[in-house]
Parts: sequence; structure tokens; C-alpha cells
Amino acid sequence: MRWLNCHTRLCFNPFLQDRGRRVDQTDTEAGFQDVHVMVCVGFGFLMAFLQRYGFSSVGFTFLLAAFALQWSTLIQGFFHSLHGGHIHVGVQSMINADFCAAAVLISFGAVLGKTGPAQLLLVALLEVLLFGVNEFVLLSLLGVKDAGGSMTIHTFGAYFGLVLSRVLYRPHLEKSKHRQGSIYHSDLFAMIGTIFLWTFWPSFNSAPTMLGDGQHRTTLNTYYSLTASTLSTFALSALVGEHGRLDMVHIQNAALAGGVVVGTSGEMMLTPFGALAAGFLAGTVSTLGYKFFTPVLEAKFKLQDTCGVHNLHGMPGVLGALLGVLVAGLATHEAYGDGLGSVFPLVAEGQRSATAQAMYQLFGLLVTLTFASVGGGLGGLLLRLPFLDPPPDSQCYEDRIYWEVPGELKDEAQGSLRAEETDTRA
Amino acid sequence: MRWLNCHTRLCFNPFLQDRGRRVDQTDTEAGFQDVHVMVCVGFGFLMAFLQRYGFSSVGFTFLLAAFALQWSTLIQGFFHSLHGGHIHVGVQSMINADFCAAAVLISFGAVLGKTGPAQLLLVALLEVLLFGVNEFVLLSLLGVKDAGGSMTIHTFGAYFGLVLSRVLYRPHLEKSKHRQGSIYHSDLFAMIGTIFLWTFWPSFNSAPTMLGDGQHRTTLNTYYSLTASTLSTFALSALVGEHGRLDMVHIQNAALAGGVVVGTSGEMMLTPFGALAAGFLAGTVSTLGYKFFTPVLEAKFKLQDTCGVHNLHGMPGVLGALLGVLVAGLATHEAYGDGLGSVFPLVAEGQRSATAQAMYQLFGLLVTLTFASVGGGLGGLLLRLPFLDPPPDSQCYEDRIYWEVPGELKDEAQGSLRAEETDTRA
Amino acid sequence: MRWLNCHTRLCFNPFLQDRGRRVDQTDTEAGFQDVHVMVCVGFGFLMAFLQRYGFSSVGFTFLLAAFALQWSTLIQGFFHSLHGGHIHVGVQSMINADFCAAAVLISFGAVLGKTGPAQLLLVALLEVLLFGVNEFVLLSLLGVKDAGGSMTIHTFGAYFGLVLSRVLYRPHLEKSKHRQGSIYHSDLFAMIGTIFLWTFWPSFNSAPTMLGDGQHRTTLNTYYSLTASTLSTFALSALVGEHGRLDMVHIQNAALAGGVVVGTSGEMMLTPFGALAAGFLAGTVSTLGYKFFTPVLEAKFKLQDTCGVHNLHGMPGVLGALLGVLVAGLATHEAYGDGLGSVFPLVAEGQRSATAQAMYQLFGLLVTLTFASVGGGLGGLLLRLPFLDPPPDSQCYEDRIYWEVPGELKDEAQGSLRAEETDTRA
Repeated sequence: MRWLNCHTRLCFNPFLQDRGRRVDQTDTEAGFQDVHVMVCVGFGFLMAFLQRYGFSSVGFTFLLAAFALQWSTLIQGFFHSLHGGHIHVGVQSMINADFCAAAVLISFGAVLGKTGPAQLLLVALLEVLLFGVNEFVLLSLLGVKDAGGSMTIHTFGAYFGLVLSRVLYRPHLEKSKHRQGSIYHSDLFAMIGTIFLWTFWPSFNSAPTMLGDGQHRTTLNTYYSLTASTLSTFALSALVGEHGRLDMVHIQNAALAGGVVVGTSGEMMLTPFGALAAGFLAGTVSTLGYKFFTPVLEAKFKLQDTCGVHNLHGMPGVLGALLGVLVAGLATHEAYGDGLGSVFPLVAEGQRSATAQAMYQLFGLLVTLTFASVGGGLGGLLLRLPFLDPPPDSQCYEDRIYWEVPGELKDEAQGSLRAEETDTRA
Repeated sequence: MRWLNCHTRLCFNPFLQDRGRRVDQTDTEAGFQDVHVMVCVGFGFLMAFLQRYGFSSVGFTFLLAAFALQWSTLIQGFFHSLHGGHIHVGVQSMINADFCAAAVLISFGAVLGKTGPAQLLLVALLEVLLFGVNEFVLLSLLGVKDAGGSMTIHTFGAYFGLVLSRVLYRPHLEKSKHRQGSIYHSDLFAMIGTIFLWTFWPSFNSAPTMLGDGQHRTTLNTYYSLTASTLSTFALSALVGEHGRLDMVHIQNAALAGGVVVGTSGEMMLTPFGALAAGFLAGTVSTLGYKFFTPVLEAKFKLQDTCGVHNLHGMPGVLGALLGVLVAGLATHEAYGDGLGSVFPLVAEGQRSATAQAMYQLFGLLVTLTFASVGGGLGGLLLRLPFLDPPPDSQCYEDRIYWEVPGELKDEAQGSLRAEETDTRA
Repeated sequence: MRWLNCHTRLCFNPFLQDRGRRVDQTDTEAGFQDVHVMVCVGFGFLMAFLQRYGFSSVGFTFLLAAFALQWSTLIQGFFHSLHGGHIHVGVQSMINADFCAAAVLISFGAVLGKTGPAQLLLVALLEVLLFGVNEFVLLSLLGVKDAGGSMTIHTFGAYFGLVLSRVLYRPHLEKSKHRQGSIYHSDLFAMIGTIFLWTFWPSFNSAPTMLGDGQHRTTLNTYYSLTASTLSTFALSALVGEHGRLDMVHIQNAALAGGVVVGTSGEMMLTPFGALAAGFLAGTVSTLGYKFFTPVLEAKFKLQDTCGVHNLHGMPGVLGALLGVLVAGLATHEAYGDGLGSVFPLVAEGQRSATAQAMYQLFGLLVTLTFASVGGGLGGLLLRLPFLDPPPDSQCYEDRIYWEVPGELKDEAQGSLRAEETDTRA
């Protein structure tokens, strides 16, 4: 760990890091733009489904993203691109920072509506740090492959957020129950997020991969997996719905599970049929999770998961990590040809067998779950500090604690949500 | 037709097809991303203008796109990239699949609100197949040029949908008339679709063209044509509107006709003035179509065209095909220089005169209209199968037959649309 | 000025201009697409915050963009790419036209809700012309650097619009005061604009720069500056808000000031810390401007600035120009190396000292302010022509003067905004 024993002069250089691989900057810049859109537009609007929490969903996403991008540039710079006391920044570091912001926003989804901005910034401070440590351990120390982040982004973000939410359990949250659902237009705003996430996910998973074959393979696998998870989500949602009706919660979320599940294995030789099968499975598990598992988690395990991140990121993330174990274990020189060196450099160089790589992948999952759980727990204890000013149980999922809401009644006791109505009568 | 007499082992290979032309993969990948956004975001939200059909518009677009992308990868693979029993997939096949999905979504626009998801999937199964056949006949057998798909996408999709809608004519649709219009916010959601379609259309038309001059020419021609159709649409809309008022239906749709009309000729030597004139004409025809022709189609020809696809895709598509006939007929070695080989290879090689190419283009239009009409007719007969469960006349344009709508009253007889209001009083 | 003494045959050529620099067309095409999205989606929805002016905000943005793109292609063609009587067009000219459209839309923000479409088109006719003249004077005659347009786009657009609004001062605008605010969902539509502007701003500022180091530096500086302005805006907004509440107006607008402030210096050696500091300052100034300065401008200076363009574009634009003066004055061969020739060619060639370049930059700001003020004044006088039909004081910020609004009451006297309600009872 070179950075510990050098004089760290923390000054940036506006030059590009290289990490020892040829990177066509033109292309990664387009890749960065796609990832940036996906994280900012996608996550922000996906969480805008709550009827009276749209300002906070979009606004705090914006705030957290801006903060996490800066802070993770520093943290990841320490771990990955510190040369002679300088942190080297560039397109690659911007993509990495967006990945870290994605993990923070996933965790935000678990506690959405139950935390204030000061709490969120504090927990992001911790999470970005642990994200950097976890990623460094997996990618640099263990040689684990995880291009699209099934482990480092989705599993980490989801279980960090879930443990955080568990520690912050609110027994009297039913006081805010009437605001916990969506209204017609808020569901449409959320669909903006869904469609952008769905559309840009192939670019997201392939952004950090090597150019050429590896990148196209990742793009294709993600694309196939997403189409399959969309179909299985629609089918399952109608199957388990009352009178065969579809549920917007499933469509907005579970349809995206196909992108999560190929995060690790997307750049590997998953084959299109493998991607279709993985996506189908992920959509199924995720939809069933929303329908049957989320209520159990809340009732039995005191886990209040606002956006159902366990269904969209948690379970599909773990599945994706296990799929990565499987596909890595099956890697051969025959299947990959010259590409083996870029996907599994240690296997290509003969330092590891494919089976050993698979074991390392599995170990990486356990490390991620450990970091996420411990981090989420620590974060939860931190957020219980009283001066951080969490919303009261009766004011969860409510914008007007934090925002000037147009047409808001001055009488705080009046719980009406009809801001528009009031406004128009003014 | 090579694929008929080989043992078809339907296994994908995650490698790129080439179709015998140099394709810079970096660039086409950016092109794919643009086309993907345009199809998913653009079409989905454009159709969200109906007051109580937003979930279905966006949701079924999502479902149909996911299904069509998979199915058309298979179908087009059979026709275009089957080598030794393998279908080769890659960036080009993803762009082609998105084009096919666009045609399916155009047809969806004609029957929007009057069909259920099972019906839509069944008809997509047929349409994707016929799209592939028609495209194969035009591009591969007849040597017709149609980069941006004035014929293969717009004319085909529109007339398929229109004949489908004709066969499914509902004489008592006025029972759902009160839901057939927009409300204030649904029109704004639709404008998201419009703006995204407008912005990305230059990339859409140029995505399958050769890199370099041809691609830039297509981009420029589409861009000029769209600006011209926007201006003529605003002018015409105010001219024919009551008290000179603009109509959102025109702005959302007719302003886009400029992209449709240069779909065939965009990569040809249309010249900017040609593009501006074509766009101006398309915007005019389309706006007048919405104002005067759509009511006649419904009253006299029993053609209920929910989104007015005849005005946005049908007439401008046919115009675009005819414009392609004209511009192809005027092609000379002098005007194109070395570029003639990439735009009209058969003319450049001396196998065809420019006039012959023009005749082939015209024949391509007739073939397309035939396939679309026969296909739409067949599709309509198929959809009359009783177990496919179409919505009753009084429940058209209504989300809650297919979706759990937030705040919905359990009393089905209560026709109220005030879901939000109900919700907030709960 | 070569174009004055040649026979101007105004015919376009669908080939690319070059301006004597190597331009990788693949990349600039992706850059164009990003700029195009930012201008069309970003500005359109950002202005959709008004409760009853969404159709006009998005629709007139669309109209003005289409018009300005065409007209500025001609105007800028005269100044920059007229060769032998032909205007050469290409990707670069499309990016330039989008930049000009951005300036027009900024000015539109100052008079939003108080002007009709005929007025807007007339003033755009003038503004595009003056934008072209100003840009020609700065970039070609004075050798000023302004890649992201702190001066040519933001300062010019803002002060043009502000002087225009001053000349069109309406003393009885309070008659429309009840429509001047937002409602809940209109604020969310505006956030679509904000997030798209924020996400694509790095591409916007870097689109016209040289490929390679210069472009990456611009991207990185803009990215850091935007994250900083977002954080300072949230902090300040809570600090000055009643009960520590955030104000959507600040978040939607001031958070973007970081993109404006590095428009000139983004491609220079600003360093990441410089970019962070600039962004922090811009966010602070902008937020305080909305809170304290806008009311003073209206009360004392009779300046009714609907969107607060003075806070988002005016002050940050001027600050950005001054920052450019400073950074240009500090330019050395040591700091830039070989890159000096692309950023400051006249300094690299020894024709100017860095200090002289700084003076030219400052002079460029004064020229811009002069052109903008005189132009805005002229525009204002022009718009007072009576036949242009401005909205009456009591009907400002109201869509239904120009649009068929769904569910609109026929009784014009009834000032109700409840269009949806009416509609559903029909």
C-alpha cells in the first residue's frame, strides 16, 4: 500500500490516470456521460414515486450525488491513483466516482423518507470511505472481477442501507402510512427513472471494461438480461396481482434486476442464453420479493425498506455475485482466446486456476457483505445522534419538513396533501 | 436464402457481425445508445398524453420493446447474420432490433387504449416477423436504400397499425370518449417524449449509415428537416386553431414529421435546402392531417387512430419514400464522388442506372404497403380471438383494467378519475 | 471580413467546415448530441416550473430552438465558414447553432410569461444576429478564449434578456401574481431540466474545445465546479430559508451556476481546487442573488426577471469572464507545455504576452455587455410595436391565451386553474 509511506501532497493533476491499460479516452468520455446520466436522472426519478416526497427524492439524490462524487474522488484517489503524492484524476476517476455515488443512492433507497439531509450526508461520508476500502480489497488485493458492480455497488449498497434501516427501526411508522404510497403522476415520474436506468444500464456495466470485445460482450449480456427480466417481471406481476393486474412497484423496480444480476459476469463468457436465463431469474426473484418477502422483512425482522432495495439490488446482487463465481470457475483458454488476459489476467498468467478465481470471487462476496453490514450498523449508530434531527414518525415521507412547498398551508396540524388545490384557491 | 439449407444450430455467439463493411465499433456503440434512448424514452412518453392511460402507455411500451428486441434479434439474425448455423449478434444487431421495436411501437399508437397486453404481445409476434421479411426483401433482395426507415419503419409500422385498427373497429367507442383527451400534466409528460424524439432523431437516422461523410450528411439533413417541420407545424397549428391557439397534439406529433420524411433520403444528396423543404412540407401535411383528415378517417373509413400515426408516420413515411425515389433518380457520379459506392453500391458498380434505382425504390414502397396491409389485416383477425380479453368499449383508455392504480375506488361503477383526490382523503 | 466582397451564393454544402484544426468527427458528433439534449431538454423543462405556463415554457423553447438553430446556421456561416460564396456546414456548425440557441433561451427566461410567440420570434431574429456579431468580434477579431461561453452565451444572453425585460416593464404585473409561482408537480418537471443541464454541462463546455487534454480538462473542471456549486447552494438555501427549509428555486437554478462560472476558464489550467472554489463561489452568489437581489431589482430597478437569469447566468457569467481574465494572465509555457498552442495560440506564438491576453479577455467582457445591452434595448423597443399582441397584465404566465388547454372553461372570466377537475366532470 504505497500511499501510506509517501508524503501525501494532496494536489490534483488534471491529467489522466491509466491503471496500466490502454484506454481510448474518446470512448470512455462517452461512457462517462452515459453513466452520469443513469446515476443522476435514473436514481433521482426512480425514488420520486412517493406522493409527497418528490422534492426530497430528486433533491437529496442531487445533493448526495454531488457530495459523493467529490468525496469518492479523494478516497478512491488514495487507493488507486496516488502517484508521488498526487492524486491523478480523469475520465476513469469520474466513472468510478459515479459508481460510488450509485452505491450511496441505493442505500438511500432503504431509508428514503425516514432521514434528514444532515443524516444522509453524515452516512454518505462513512459509506464512501467503506466503499473505497471494500473495492480496494476486492479489485486490488483479492483480484476479484466485478466490472458492473454486482458486489461492490449493488450488494454493498443494498445491505449497507438495509442494516442502516434496521438500526433506525421505527416502531410507530404507521403514523405516516398514508403518505407511503404513490399517486398517479408520481408513478409516472418514477417511470422516467426506470426507463433511463433500463436504457443506460448496458453502458453502465460496460463503462469500466476494456474496450473492444470485452466491452461489447458486457453491453450485449446486459441488454439481453434486461429484456428477459422485464418480460418475467410483467408475467409474474400479473400472475400474483389481484384480478391479474400489474403493479407499478414491480414494473418500476424488478424489471431492472436483469442489469444487477449480470454486473459481475457481464464481461465474462456468459453467452446470450446465459444472460437471458439470468435476467429471467432475477426478474422473477425480485418480483416475488416485492410481493411476499418485503412484508415479512418488515413484520418479522423489523426491516423497513422504503424502495425495496433488497429486491432490486440485494438479492439480484448476491445472485449476480454467485453467477460470477460459476462463470469464473468455468473459464478456459479455449473459450476466451486472447481475451482471457483482459478478463482474468491472473488466470491467463497462470498464477491462479479458474477454480481458484471462483473461490476468490466467492470470498469477495463475503467480504462485501461483511463491510456492508458492519458499515451499515456503524452508520445507524451514528445517525442516532440526537442533534441530527430526524423527522418524527408522523412526518416521514413528507417534503415540507425540509422544503418550501408551494401552496403549503401554514397550519402544520392540517395534514392535507392537496397543495395544488390550496394554491389554486389563493 | 442460405439459412434454409443449413443445419440451423440456434446458438448465439457474442461476437460482432460485420455485413462486409468497416464499422467502427466505438462509434456505433454511441449510436446504439442514442437509438435506444429515443425508442424507449421517446415513444413511451409520447403516448402518455392520455389522461388515464399513462401507466399503460409507458408500461406497455416497455413490455413491447423488451419483447420485440429479443424476438427481432432472432428473426433478423435468420435473415442477415446466420453463419454456419450461428446467429451473430453485436452492436449492429442491437440497432436493428431497436428499429424493429420502433415499428411495433408505431403500430401500438394506432390501437392505443383499445387493446390488452396479451393482444399486443401476440400482434408483436407477427409484426416482428413481417418486419424482418419486408426489410430483407427491400434491403437484401431489391437493393433498396432506406437507412432511417421511412419505408421499413414508419410506413410499415403505420399502415400495419392502421389496418389492424380498422379490423378491430369499435362502433361504440364513444362510451370512452371522456377519457380520450389529455389533461394538463399528461400533455407535459408527452412533451418529454417529443423532445427526446426530436433531439435524438438525427442519431436515429444516421445510426445504420456508413461512418464519415454519409453519416454526417444524414445527421445534418435530419436536423434541418426537423427544424423546418417544427416551424411549419407551429405556424399551421396557429393558423387552423380557434382564436389562433396552438394545439398540443400538433406540437407533440407533427413537429416530428421532419424526421420521418428524410428517413430514406437523409443519407443521399438531399442538400440542406432540400431537407428544409421536405421538413416544411412534412410538418404542413401532418398538421393538416391531424386537423382535417383524422376526423374524416374515423367518420367515413371507420378508422380509429388514437395517436394519429397516419399523420405522423403514415403520410410523412410515404412522402419520404417518394422523396427517396426522386433523389435516387437524380444520383450522379459527379454529385457523390467516391461516396456513391457507399450510398448506391449497385449504381456505382454499373449494375443499375440511377433511374432503375429509383424504380426499385418505388417498388420497395409498394412492397412495404402490401406487407403492412396484409400483416395488419391478419393481425386484426388474430386479435379477434375471444380469449385474448380486449377491454370493453366503456373501459377503453383506462389504466385500471390492467394496473393497480393508487387511490382507486373499489366500486368499479364509479367512473371517477380523481384517483389523487381519493388517495389523499384515505 | 471576407464575405462582404465576394459574390455570396448562399448555397449550403453538406460537407464539414474545419476552421483549420484537426477535428475527430466521431467524437464531435457525440459532443453535438450531448449539447443538443442539454439545450432542448434542459432549458425547456427548467422553465416549466410555472403552474400554468408549462405548455408555453416547453413549447416556445422548442419553437425558439428550431428557429434559432436555422437562423444562426446562416448568420454564423457568414462569419465563420463562408468559402467561395458557400457556407460550409457540419457538426461544428450544429454545435455553434445550439450555443446560439442557448443564449436565446436564456434571454427568454427573463421575459418568460410576459411575451407572445410573435414577439419571441422577432427578438430572436435580432438576438441571433447580434450573438453572431459579438462572437465574431470576440473569438475572431480579439482572439478572446471562451469555449463554454461564460461571456458569449451566458453574459450575453442574460443581459440581453434583462435589458429587454426592463424596457418591457409592466407596472401592473401583480395582477398575474397568483400564477407566478409553481405547484408541486411543475417543480418536479423543472427538476428534469435541472438534472439534465447538470449532467450534460461537462459535455457542453468541452464540446468546442480541442480533443485530448484540453477537452478532458474542461470536462473535469466543469464537473468539479458543478459539484461544488450544488453543495454551496443546498447549504446557503437552508441557511437563508425560513425554519432552515430548502427552496426549490435555488436548487433548480443556483446549483447550476458552477457550470456557468467555468465557461471561459474551463479549458485553461484552472486546477481542480480552482474549479471547486469557483463553483462554490458561484453557487453562493447565485443563491444569495435569488434570495436578496431579485426583489431589489424588481422594486428599485423595475426589472422583472421571471426565471432569475441574472442570478443563474448574469452574475456567474461575469464572474466566469473575470476568472478567465485571471487564469489567462497566469498562463505560462511551463504550466501548459505543448498544450499552450491550443489554448492560447497567440501567446504560444509570441504575438501576445499572457497579460495582454488577460486584457483582451477583459475587453471581450465589456464588448459583450455592450452588445447585449444595446441589443436588448433595441429588442425591447421593437417588441413595443402594438401589432405584436403581448398578453395583458392580467393574463401573464397563462397558457390558455396561446394554447388549447384541456378541460379549459369556456367562461374566460372564471380564473380557475383547475383544468383537470373540470375535465373529469365532463
